[in-house]
Amino acid sequence: MIDVAILGATGYTALEAMKILLRHPDVRIVAVTSRQEGRTPVSSVHPSLVGRLDLPLEDLGPEEVGSRAACVFSCLPHCASAEIVPRVLAAGARVVDFSADYRLDDAETYREWYGHEHPDADRLGRTVYGLPELFRDGIREARLVANPGCYSTSAILPLAPLLARGMIEGDDIIVDSKSGVSGAGRTPKLMTHFPECNESMSAYNVGRHRHTPEIEQVVARHAGARPRVIFTPQLAPMDRGILSTIYAKPTRTLTERDVMDALRDAYAGERFVRVVDHLPGTKDTVDTNFCDVTARVVGGRILLISCLDNLVKGAAGAAVQNFNVLFGLPETAGLP
Amino acid sequence: MIDVAILGATGYTALEAMKILLRHPDVRIVAVTSRQEGRTPVSSVHPSLVGRLDLPLEDLGPEEVGSRAACVFSCLPHCASAEIVPRVLAAGARVVDFSADYRLDDAETYREWYGHEHPDADRLGRTVYGLPELFRDGIREARLVANPGCYSTSAILPLAPLLARGMIEGDDIIVDSKSGVSGAGRTPKLMTHFPECNESMSAYNVGRHRHTPEIEQVVARHAGARPRVIFTPQLAPMDRGILSTIYAKPTRTLTERDVMDALRDAYAGERFVRVVDHLPGTKDTVDTNFCDVTARVVGGRILLISCLDNLVKGAAGAAVQNFNVLFGLPETAGLP
Amino acid sequence: MIDVAILGATGYTALEAMKILLRHPDVRIVAVTSRQEGRTPVSSVHPSLVGRLDLPLEDLGPEEVGSRAACVFSCLPHCASAEIVPRVLAAGARVVDFSADYRLDDAETYREWYGHEHPDADRLGRTVYGLPELFRDGIREARLVANPGCYSTSAILPLAPLLARGMIEGDDIIVDSKSGVSGAGRTPKLMTHFPECNESMSAYNVGRHRHTPEIEQVVARHAGARPRVIFTPQLAPMDRGILSTIYAKPTRTLTERDVMDALRDAYAGERFVRVVDHLPGTKDTVDTNFCDVTARVVGGRILLISCLDNLVKGAAGAAVQNFNVLFGLPETAGLP
Amino acid sequence: MIDVAILGATGYTALEAMKILLRHPDVRIVAVTSRQEGRTPVSSVHPSLVGRLDLPLEDLGPEEVGSRAACVFSCLPHCASAEIVPRVLAAGARVVDFSADYRLDDAETYREWYGHEHPDADRLGRTVYGLPELFRDGIREARLVANPGCYSTSAILPLAPLLARGMIEGDDIIVDSKSGVSGAGRTPKLMTHFPECNESMSAYNVGRHRHTPEIEQVVARHAGARPRVIFTPQLAPMDRGILSTIYAKPTRTLTERDVMDALRDAYAGERFVRVVDHLPGTKDTVDTNFCDVTARVVGGRILLISCLDNLVKGAAGAAVQNFNVLFGLPETAGLP
Repeated sequence: MIDVAILGATGYTALEAMKILLRHPDVRIVAVTSRQEGRTPVSSVHPSLVGRLDLPLEDLGPEEVGSRAACVFSCLPHCASAEIVPRVLAAGARVVDFSADYRLDDAETYREWYGHEHPDADRLGRTVYGLPELFRDGIREARLVANPGCYSTSAILPLAPLLARGMIEGDDIIVDSKSGVSGAGRTPKLMTHFPECNESMSAYNVGRHRHTPEIEQVVARHAGARPRVIFTPQLAPMDRGILSTIYAKPTRTLTERDVMDALRDAYAGERFVRVVDHLPGTKDTVDTNFCDVTARVVGGRILLISCLDNLVKGAAGAAVQNFNVLFGLPETAGLP
Repeated sequence: MIDVAILGATGYTALEAMKILLRHPDVRIVAVTSRQEGRTPVSSVHPSLVGRLDLPLEDLGPEEVGSRAACVFSCLPHCASAEIVPRVLAAGARVVDFSADYRLDDAETYREWYGHEHPDADRLGRTVYGLPELFRDGIREARLVANPGCYSTSAILPLAPLLARGMIEGDDIIVDSKSGVSGAGRTPKLMTHFPECNESMSAYNVGRHRHTPEIEQVVARHAGARPRVIFTPQLAPMDRGILSTIYAKPTRTLTERDVMDALRDAYAGERFVRVVDHLPGTKDTVDTNFCDVTARVVGGRILLISCLDNLVKGAAGAAVQNFNVLFGLPETAGLP
Repeated sequence: MIDVAILGATGYTALEAMKILLRHPDVRIVAVTSRQEGRTPVSSVHPSLVGRLDLPLEDLGPEEVGSRAACVFSCLPHCASAEIVPRVLAAGARVVDFSADYRLDDAETYREWYGHEHPDADRLGRTVYGLPELFRDGIREARLVANPGCYSTSAILPLAPLLARGMIEGDDIIVDSKSGVSGAGRTPKLMTHFPECNESMSAYNVGRHRHTPEIEQVVARHAGARPRVIFTPQLAPMDRGILSTIYAKPTRTLTERDVMDALRDAYAGERFVRVVDHLPGTKDTVDTNFCDVTARVVGGRILLISCLDNLVKGAAGAAVQNFNVLFGLPETAGLP
Repeated sequence: MIDVAILGATGYTALEAMKILLRHPDVRIVAVTSRQEGRTPVSSVHPSLVGRLDLPLEDLGPEEVGSRAACVFSCLPHCASAEIVPRVLAAGARVVDFSADYRLDDAETYREWYGHEHPDADRLGRTVYGLPELFRDGIREARLVANPGCYSTSAILPLAPLLARGMIEGDDIIVDSKSGVSGAGRTPKLMTHFPECNESMSAYNVGRHRHTPEIEQVVARHAGARPRVIFTPQLAPMDRGILSTIYAKPTRTLTERDVMDALRDAYAGERFVRVVDHLPGTKDTVDTNFCDVTARVVGGRILLISCLDNLVKGAAGAAVQNFNVLFGLPETAGLP
């Protein structure tokens, strides 16, 4: 059994991680931390865990966590995570970081998009981006993995193979995404107050959502130059799920068949990417670690449609998949 | 045109009141108040009002409000309302109070359920309860009307005629109610955070919801002794609507026909109570001032099923109906 | 009072039309038709109408309808509508047609997209498209108005002014739209079965939705050549509302201010188009006849974001607005 | 590995069963049947199964199914199931029957509530009711298990221990239940059409829902005489979950503590019944096999509040739990 700990266990991605880890045949959860909750059982904060995980929430220092657990899942907010992760690593544990802190390659882009200095800038550019479908080898040898953003995964998985094959232009990509409300976290705000967002669709952070540079940077590795992505996040009245509709410009005349073949070829051996003929709905992937992808050619553009569960393939499922790779376990272990 | 003002204009019942009043042929909204928002247009807080009502929110004293408006709709929280209402009345305006402050008959019950001394206890027992279907004459001559609680209306309307006719026992009444989330107000809390309450049903305040004494007191006027009501409020994943399923014990053998006849007789001339044969859904009444009621006899008990829109017949619609009675206007004016 | 009739009164757009017309000060509903329901009250099919409109559903011939009513709202499906409308017109009534039958300019496009011959092809190209904001003069003198498609209105209103001013390219327009489920009509199907579409987002009819040629044709009048529109309809888990996110290519360097100024200028005197600075949500427009529009400049493209209620400004509200223009009434009469 | 088959694999309970069985360490799904779908993969009907279960749907005879599989899960409708089950049993397989066919004890009650003769009446009264918490020993030795109704489980689990201990009256029980829409099955109907039932609550089948005799019969085993249950099912706008609020009359003065102690005592060793202090929400149990129960004493009555996922503990989870007992596996195997 591998001992794991969850930092910042009161949020939704942490809850999802715990639910998945409880089913994982090779894992034992040994610590769950929170700064605010006193020493109450984690199940008093998440009543769905009653009788399944009644560990007390503890306000533990990073060294303590890093020595208790072989792997630490950090569900802390950005900036807070990078302040702690180095000390957890120093204590000997491996880390899967849910925050954005280690996703970007350089400190300047981080400062620009996150508004403050990176507390551990040296690791930028040297930390693997935790998409096993693209960076499995790097993850295998890593001690720290930057778990991807939920929107980012939904955009990168369909785009990367087409860019890598030179089938679409890198500088004319539009990603129109719709997300369930759990993506906004567990802190009550007016925007996510039920009577405000229920029965409504709206765009937010247009042109300035922080997953934009992340998408651009990762797909850049598969394109010649740095791509230019217009990314529009939108809030949909549902708990979970991201549907991304992506409009890309082909570099040459391509049929739907060409595009589907490229996607199928790219993800042939991948368990968690399903290239499907039908138009997938987010519900097809809810509570699973799948990302469903399809393509259409319309009016001279390639439409890529992807969907996933933002809390699973978009967060906790991907984290466990990364954990499995890190520890040489079957990549699907514990994963729905 | 009758000049009206809204106190505490940032919440949902105030928004609903403004929407209804904007369509009212005889009304002009002259002031909307808030303590917190600075002097911004009310439409910046409620974007659905853009271009319809762009009055600035003002932090006005009660005397100022009471002299500007002939009728003041107070959407302040309980206790806050009763501190202001006397001064608004003294300034010459009539008041429809959305809070619970003037609904109960005595200061002791108020202290017991609301946890503090009533700031204007003299008016308790002398203020009319704003259900025109039951207390129209009193409203007509009032200067202050206590607008009923949303759950209370859904329980009182079906119960009162049967108690008045001695058809059901007063001491064995169960009211099982399900409400949309807007009933919890506009302040973000964990319980009403979308990912918490969406796709879930739960009971809350079991045995201690403040509408209990209100229901008991009002139906007592139609029963011999003080009735005993078990009231269970439950949160349903929808914006609006209350469905109340009421279980009462008949005093003698009664058929469904007997009960329906009594209800039809009681509400024969009433526009806003629809006694229907089918099982009504809350959606039938959404955005209207209707309360739909039906009855069944099951296993020796009488089931009364009622539904209404908690923001309309349960709050702002009832308030405008009261306003119409207060000012001698057609009772349906402006009402959907 | 103007006598009106509703053809095909059992669906959602008809219900919405009846609700609006019931509040219209100058209208009397004299007939509601259905082929399937026998002579039951329309309120038995739509329980929200109980006590408000209890007219019997009748299976009336077009001549009978056209002689009873001065204006007929046809909520029949496409093709069925065009078979009846000529006879209603011949009987002397004016018609607002909710179907797509008179929206397109030529019979060939109709055949291509709707799959059969047009039953009344002569009127194509001569029937006014019922967007008063763009074609008010034509509507004023018409006897038949083609009420626009819901998606179409959400796309045309923001696009037309920018095309008319030569600010965006006509041949590179992407319209990514999300609609509530009522847009799919009232006939139960698997796709709109609650447990299928609730808590899910999905695209449908990608590249072949019938509103595509309609959008292209109408905006063509404001552009030099025929525009090319990629239109992606998506189903969102809510009753009502369309959010359209539109990506257009500027013809020259433009600021957000330039675009907003153009939109504000175009809709300066229009009651029902609100050009807003904030990012609007569909809920801001629900149950109203407003279309809210805003613009952003992102990554060299112009983003236009619009929202409206598909049953009101997208159908019944627009129809009543057209009716008001047709009969010389105040354009806002009866409209929320 | 134990080979299992699913009869009637196109509905929601079958889908849920397949999802659970796919995670079960000791199970192999060898056949999935349907009469209507031709020989297409089951994943074409349930796209969430793509890549997880792509077996073809087959129209197999009961003998064939019963010889291929050691255990057959019948998700056929009532009556259809009892026509097939005897032949599946004769072919050697054990059966967990999701339908109501073997739940009742006598053919006459069956005829009265289901409206036709029972096709296999001899097995009534001799088939074990599949609630392991109450009838584990019987299930262990059975070859056919009648899987309980979803509402029934939510009512029986809290009621049985109190009746068995003589703490509540058997003839004055009210069960007020609210269910998600998946409980109504996968066939599209107007009542479950999204725009009809979304954002609405309504009661249905008041006084005549078929789970009534089932609840009465099972709790009768724990009470002296046949109990009398008033059962009110209500539709809530959510996919899954049942919240039952039960009003019972104590036989003597009882405190909340007394009732909670009795519940805790009854379910001390039970994994899947959680007796909790807080008021549980259906979401706490969604996607799990838990039934959460709590109690309150209000106005002289005992309130029991229970919740569960109608597709898991209310159907497929319970079936797998029964399967585990039948085959001597750990009762929690494969269960979330």
